[in-house]
Amino acid sequence: MAARPIIALLSDFGLRDHYVAAMKAVVLGICPDVSLVDISHDIPPQDILAGALELEAIVPYLPSGAVVLAVVDPGVGSGRRAVAIEAGGLHFVGPDNGLFSLALAGLSQATAVSIEDRRFVRERISRTFEGRDRFAPAAAWLACGTATGELGPAVHGLVRLDVPAATRSRDGVEGVVLRVDHFGNLVTNLGDEDLPALRSGVTVHVAGATIHGIAGTYAEVAPGALCAMVGSTGRLEISVNGGSAALMLKAGRGTSAHVRLRSGA
Amino acid sequence: MAARPIIALLSDFGLRDHYVAAMKAVVLGICPDVSLVDISHDIPPQDILAGALELEAIVPYLPSGAVVLAVVDPGVGSGRRAVAIEAGGLHFVGPDNGLFSLALAGLSQATAVSIEDRRFVRERISRTFEGRDRFAPAAAWLACGTATGELGPAVHGLVRLDVPAATRSRDGVEGVVLRVDHFGNLVTNLGDEDLPALRSGVTVHVAGATIHGIAGTYAEVAPGALCAMVGSTGRLEISVNGGSAALMLKAGRGTSAHVRLRSGA
Amino acid sequence: MAARPIIALLSDFGLRDHYVAAMKAVVLGICPDVSLVDISHDIPPQDILAGALELEAIVPYLPSGAVVLAVVDPGVGSGRRAVAIEAGGLHFVGPDNGLFSLALAGLSQATAVSIEDRRFVRERISRTFEGRDRFAPAAAWLACGTATGELGPAVHGLVRLDVPAATRSRDGVEGVVLRVDHFGNLVTNLGDEDLPALRSGVTVHVAGATIHGIAGTYAEVAPGALCAMVGSTGRLEISVNGGSAALMLKAGRGTSAHVRLRSGA
Repeated sequence: MAARPIIALLSDFGLRDHYVAAMKAVVLGICPDVSLVDISHDIPPQDILAGALELEAIVPYLPSGAVVLAVVDPGVGSGRRAVAIEAGGLHFVGPDNGLFSLALAGLSQATAVSIEDRRFVRERISRTFEGRDRFAPAAAWLACGTATGELGPAVHGLVRLDVPAATRSRDGVEGVVLRVDHFGNLVTNLGDEDLPALRSGVTVHVAGATIHGIAGTYAEVAPGALCAMVGSTGRLEISVNGGSAALMLKAGRGTSAHVRLRSGA
Repeated sequence: MAARPIIALLSDFGLRDHYVAAMKAVVLGICPDVSLVDISHDIPPQDILAGALELEAIVPYLPSGAVVLAVVDPGVGSGRRAVAIEAGGLHFVGPDNGLFSLALAGLSQATAVSIEDRRFVRERISRTFEGRDRFAPAAAWLACGTATGELGPAVHGLVRLDVPAATRSRDGVEGVVLRVDHFGNLVTNLGDEDLPALRSGVTVHVAGATIHGIAGTYAEVAPGALCAMVGSTGRLEISVNGGSAALMLKAGRGTSAHVRLRSGA
Repeated sequence: MAARPIIALLSDFGLRDHYVAAMKAVVLGICPDVSLVDISHDIPPQDILAGALELEAIVPYLPSGAVVLAVVDPGVGSGRRAVAIEAGGLHFVGPDNGLFSLALAGLSQATAVSIEDRRFVRERISRTFEGRDRFAPAAAWLACGTATGELGPAVHGLVRLDVPAATRSRDGVEGVVLRVDHFGNLVTNLGDEDLPALRSGVTVHVAGATIHGIAGTYAEVAPGALCAMVGSTGRLEISVNGGSAALMLKAGRGTSAHVRLRSGA
């Protein structure tokens, strides 16, 4: 028996209304054997960057062949393109507004089409809810084996998000907090590769606090203490062992984080 | 291979406790091949109307044969009936308190039974949680092919909800906000069919604000501006492009919405 | 066709970030036919007791063979053991910190192993997210038929939680609120077996209020009134018919509940 197809969903719809279920119902009507996995539906409304960061984080763990159906779509009903993308053995379906750009950056070359063929979308397409009427059916057809090229004409020049890059400073590297997670961890744009090799020889400066060294695990620091650590997505995170760094530091997206080689080190 | 059966769940249980999982565990013990889809579990506690509106909205998208398992049940443990209903190629399982009445209004004739046969419910039935002990097993047996008539004797006169109807006014139509969604959209009881054909020739009056015309898509109005639009469920909604109409207007369920033919139009 | 395997998940990860989806993606990459059921991901951060109570409550309803994948793991990255446990026809995978101890107390003898065999975990194991890199793959292999003993060496002396026990008082029994559910019900540590046989002949004292008798169902008390009842998990609960006892009494975990034989009874 072949593996069941997978569709992984992300949106800013929340879980209170029937909107996510409407997409799933449409999917199951087309591809009943699919496994549905929710990535998140609590992306802040219209926050494309927040959605893009979650997609970037989950993509390395998705089985080959999985379809990502993602809808954070402030431009619904406007001229923005609706796309299906194939890259790195995965499929991506949603608006062409940069939502996939971080995830795609790490994958081998992407090919994309504009979802236009009437056979693969619902007959009537709401101008406020293309997630249900265009993206969900397109994702379902892909999951059940339709070739990407069938959905519509090839498109080029996918929209890319502008994410703040790490910058070298005189004595280290400057970054910024990109997201705050459920535990209050401050996830920065500083990757493993931006950090000095000698991790004990640094200080991290964030929101007025100074953290000495980069820890390997929470257990290295006292309960309630601040620490800096390369987190599960490979990025530098500011955390509190057993608490919330966001609350302790009153910090959030945009807070700058400065990693310095310690004076004398 | 036949399509996998589908059970779509709705409740006011929230997702923090194990209650929804208890229903799913019972279902999978009886019908292991089922696909489970959550419609919503964040219906406000005991708010039958809110649940009924979500069911009405999702039903048109459910594949034929799907079972709706819905529990918003302030009368649990009282004399209210426990029912299984067949209508429009779908099944509905839950309390007979009006929860299904809006969804059923749009479907071909319904037949209903009282869920009583001991073979299709759990041996011990909690008087505070029939969702787990009576409704979940009944839904599972239906999903796996048991005929509705097996579950118990036929019943008639299902409870119907009283939903405020649109009323004609001297110069237009008066409605009311029925629900506020995750985005702060105000969804009214005014359907497509209640609105004048000439949609540019109207004003919408709600919570002290006046909106000129009915838009076709968010993109027609400026960011941050109020608009009125027929939403994805076919009802007039008051929205803010990129924001929350509920917050901007301090409006909610029960707020009246008046659609007037513009003076001189 | 054999029943599809089931993995039931519990964590304190919340649903906003991609963390739960990362575990599911890893699971589906190994065991694509699995049914995934969420017990709860809204356990308060690092609250092992809260997680243990939900697991205790759901376990009686899980079909034989199901795998419980649970991660509330304040000691991640420390020396705490990572275990797979077999008991009562079920499997449990997660940290050895007491999280499973209440659920296991009701099951026949448990055998446990330390999850160490490199074949059944991810190649690189994050020191802050073993849920994804160690527990999820181990759970998936178990669900797809790998024997528990394959995962690593046997371990003994699993960590047990200390849960406050009911105590006899001069005129009845003293308990304590263990959890507050979504409806504001106060769930105590008093089980059916702790209560006197004659339930009309008691008073329940909690947070300054006195409740006469133990009800059989909400319908026995007036709307808005307090009542005491043996809830769906077999424990004494303090509830408000149609409202929240937690709000009315300003009570929560740790509030004491005293059941007295009524004077003269």
